[in-house]
Amino acid sequence: MSTAILLIHCPDRRGLVAAISTFLYEHGANILHADQHQDQRHGLFFMRVEYSLDGFGLDHRQFVDRFTPVAERFAIEWRLEYSALRPAVAIFVSRHLHCLVDLLHRHAVGELAARIPVVVSNHEDARPLVEFHGIAFHHVPVSFATKAADEERQLQVLADYSVDLVVLARYMQVLSPGFVRRYPQRIINVHHSFLPAFVGARPYHAAFDRGVKLIGATSHYVTDELDEGPIIEQDVARVSHRDQVDDLVQKGRDLERMVLSRAVRWHLEHRVLLYANKTVVFD
Amino acid sequence: MSTAILLIHCPDRRGLVAAISTFLYEHGANILHADQHQDQRHGLFFMRVEYSLDGFGLDHRQFVDRFTPVAERFAIEWRLEYSALRPAVAIFVSRHLHCLVDLLHRHAVGELAARIPVVVSNHEDARPLVEFHGIAFHHVPVSFATKAADEERQLQVLADYSVDLVVLARYMQVLSPGFVRRYPQRIINVHHSFLPAFVGARPYHAAFDRGVKLIGATSHYVTDELDEGPIIEQDVARVSHRDQVDDLVQKGRDLERMVLSRAVRWHLEHRVLLYANKTVVFD
Amino acid sequence: MSTAILLIHCPDRRGLVAAISTFLYEHGANILHADQHQDQRHGLFFMRVEYSLDGFGLDHRQFVDRFTPVAERFAIEWRLEYSALRPAVAIFVSRHLHCLVDLLHRHAVGELAARIPVVVSNHEDARPLVEFHGIAFHHVPVSFATKAADEERQLQVLADYSVDLVVLARYMQVLSPGFVRRYPQRIINVHHSFLPAFVGARPYHAAFDRGVKLIGATSHYVTDELDEGPIIEQDVARVSHRDQVDDLVQKGRDLERMVLSRAVRWHLEHRVLLYANKTVVFD
Amino acid sequence: MSTAILLIHCPDRRGLVAAISTFLYEHGANILHADQHQDQRHGLFFMRVEYSLDGFGLDHRQFVDRFTPVAERFAIEWRLEYSALRPAVAIFVSRHLHCLVDLLHRHAVGELAARIPVVVSNHEDARPLVEFHGIAFHHVPVSFATKAADEERQLQVLADYSVDLVVLARYMQVLSPGFVRRYPQRIINVHHSFLPAFVGARPYHAAFDRGVKLIGATSHYVTDELDEGPIIEQDVARVSHRDQVDDLVQKGRDLERMVLSRAVRWHLEHRVLLYANKTVVFD
Repeated sequence: MSTAILLIHCPDRRGLVAAISTFLYEHGANILHADQHQDQRHGLFFMRVEYSLDGFGLDHRQFVDRFTPVAERFAIEWRLEYSALRPAVAIFVSRHLHCLVDLLHRHAVGELAARIPVVVSNHEDARPLVEFHGIAFHHVPVSFATKAADEERQLQVLADYSVDLVVLARYMQVLSPGFVRRYPQRIINVHHSFLPAFVGARPYHAAFDRGVKLIGATSHYVTDELDEGPIIEQDVARVSHRDQVDDLVQKGRDLERMVLSRAVRWHLEHRVLLYANKTVVFD
Repeated sequence: MSTAILLIHCPDRRGLVAAISTFLYEHGANILHADQHQDQRHGLFFMRVEYSLDGFGLDHRQFVDRFTPVAERFAIEWRLEYSALRPAVAIFVSRHLHCLVDLLHRHAVGELAARIPVVVSNHEDARPLVEFHGIAFHHVPVSFATKAADEERQLQVLADYSVDLVVLARYMQVLSPGFVRRYPQRIINVHHSFLPAFVGARPYHAAFDRGVKLIGATSHYVTDELDEGPIIEQDVARVSHRDQVDDLVQKGRDLERMVLSRAVRWHLEHRVLLYANKTVVFD
Repeated sequence: MSTAILLIHCPDRRGLVAAISTFLYEHGANILHADQHQDQRHGLFFMRVEYSLDGFGLDHRQFVDRFTPVAERFAIEWRLEYSALRPAVAIFVSRHLHCLVDLLHRHAVGELAARIPVVVSNHEDARPLVEFHGIAFHHVPVSFATKAADEERQLQVLADYSVDLVVLARYMQVLSPGFVRRYPQRIINVHHSFLPAFVGARPYHAAFDRGVKLIGATSHYVTDELDEGPIIEQDVARVSHRDQVDDLVQKGRDLERMVLSRAVRWHLEHRVLLYANKTVVFD
Repeated sequence: MSTAILLIHCPDRRGLVAAISTFLYEHGANILHADQHQDQRHGLFFMRVEYSLDGFGLDHRQFVDRFTPVAERFAIEWRLEYSALRPAVAIFVSRHLHCLVDLLHRHAVGELAARIPVVVSNHEDARPLVEFHGIAFHHVPVSFATKAADEERQLQVLADYSVDLVVLARYMQVLSPGFVRRYPQRIINVHHSFLPAFVGARPYHAAFDRGVKLIGATSHYVTDELDEGPIIEQDVARVSHRDQVDDLVQKGRDLERMVLSRAVRWHLEHRVLLYANKTVVFD
């Protein structure tokens, strides 16, 4: 079914839901799901409404024209997404392929509402798998000395494929602030720890040394601050004194692919809203 | 803050949310939380709206008068609850007191939006604890031969205290259909298994014999069919070959009090709606 | 490192550990891991000892000769496995490939101590993936009328590849008792429910209809009784009223591959012992 | 059943298990549980053996005499505990009583292998509950200016009751290094975060601000470094954007009492060994 998703973010005021739902009703929207959230501390209102386009009376331009006055009245920031428009996703990967394998299989069975036209890597390891899936593979080596030029090449690939979302599926290079600014809130990373614990490199070693009883993984939007972006999803697994670093790495692989794939799916289904360096994830 | 909670259950139709939210807005409701659910298979719509009574323009009688036409137009089944009216809860217990201890402490620290005027038991074990909490304790022995009369005595206690909700906190007697009919959807039980596995008596023994790797507990509304009522909450804990039946019982105690207390809290906060022998639990 | 794993199952008697550990010490075993379990209800003793073969003084024949008197003294049932001998695994699959994808990737990154020489399917869907991994693919259609002959063909494939373990990775045909008897305790299945709840067909539909708040998956050894074999591993995921059957299926896929891969890994690492239709899983 | 628990910690060497198990066998020990752990990175060996004293041929002094040569041969650090000697536990608490309620109930139903002769608090809130349980309550106010003297009073209470283990059950004062040194590895605290995330004060507020999707709690031995002691147990609970700080506090209470009670139970059952600021917890 072809649907539209209206996402709303504004100061909380009386009459908001009445105004929005009346607007949608008057133009023939058949609402399929609706969810809202009020942050009372900050006085903010968030809403996600998904409705069937079947019988809806406005095309996109008309929607913009008619909804703009409502939005202005309530100072609403909004966007309208369409389930039929499948975003283009680029996956960045280095040598650990478990998240890539996972995302490509989920895509193949229809779990991800997206196209995956291209995979970019600083190594050749992923090429056979990517090409098996009929996806373009771009090998872009990255070195400290040439990083600016390397990133230009990566950005060119993203431009060539009109990429909407970049997924860092265990991509082991840090993106420059300039790169990140080009895809604000459109780069999702997986960090192999339960953030904010064990920021930075070698988190499984740090977790082992600290003797924690659970290890974790975190998916988040990438910002200029390393490992400080808004968290989308986290999960943990139990470990014991029997587990050596290699065991943590193995258990962690399952966590990483679970939290990354959930974050990507929710982003693609337009379930994630951002504010105050945090996420609202509508289920 | 004094709030009202409007609960709605009806066939799903366009314009429902617009009609309800406009109605609330026009009478000055400041909505604090709203949640809705659509069951597309059955074409049903469920909604929970909590709004501040501060500045709301209708008293209860006026609400009924004015909302009834809206409800009739959409065939809405509804009820309106008030957070200031704290329901009266009776706890039934036998000899295992862990759920009782838990509920009484949660009540003491303000987790449960209720009064607990009375505890009923077929044994004397709970009396000191109950009286320590300043709650009336009624010892009503129950035997097979006198069950009808025993239940009459229990029902009299419930009537005397104007009880709204009966919580079976490891109460080991089966209530008769006649008793259950007097408190439809107002008796919550905890069963010490992951239903529908291990229905009936001695579920931990059955779980041990089957060699399961997780044990569970289930809270549900009581109906005429033993262990078949609508499930409100479930949880599980990991066990291994090292765990004997006694270990399952011990781990199970923690599960039982967690799932029972969550179910009771959600019921008291008017978060639970029922249909098709299932629950919608609005978080 | 090349290791041997000694697995022991016998009546519990004093002096057992002393006798076994003294035997191993006297022949130069460097013990790497040891785990034991006593079932006091049945008076049984179980042990798993892994030791380095580096410096160990007995070859396999000598071990048998020397250990047999110890075993007879204590009525020990035992077997000795070698980590260097990687068992041959055949994966059976139908049309849902998520468990297969998962197992093949785990095998590729070294998580599974086995060879996977062959995949058998009653459909063609898996062929490209299997051949991408350089594994033989045998398409053996199965129909009600020809089942006996079909199973003969499957058994011939297993014989041709000297298969040690059969993994049913969402293989949707029931194996006959005759087939099962040929691979006792060497066929692992994944059932898409939290057994013993929802035995048989369409467990996600049954779970949806019952309104459970958690769904599960179970890996177990296959026996003559459908879904009644010894459970190796189980896990669950939370669901809510928002989840339709399709959502349960999607969440279930992740559970299925987790519980199946853990069971297969533990079996291959010789961590699983059986008794009384239950498993001891040494971690 | 009266049992002894032998705990061992030493460099890993061949023949250790043979020597120990032979020693126990020769003196008539009927082993009930045994567990061991080898840390191959550090070349360390840990063991816990529980055996029945029924029929065992040595009293404590004889055990010391006879086992000392074995221990010296292998450089074994060891201790021998007796299940019949129930340690004396002092609980320290401030104003949040949920962990105290939990521990006292677990003690009442026999989950904790200990006596609890005394509760110490810097407030009066806990007195009625403690006295209901028939336990001595000592109110020791603590202020910055008088802290040294206050701790002297606390230490005097501990001495008066011959306390073996101090449990900080949401006790909101930091103990001085001098106090901690008096009870090395015998003070267990619960910290209301998933350490090492959110060290220090107000961890739920910090977790809320960071927008984590799981909150945690950690029980650990107290050392001179605040929140840096060896972790015994951790657990987490899922939170969402709907949860405000108060909701985190409420969900956290359940985590805190679970992780604290498990840590206390394991310590009392002599299941915890320490090394390298980490714990081995034998289950």
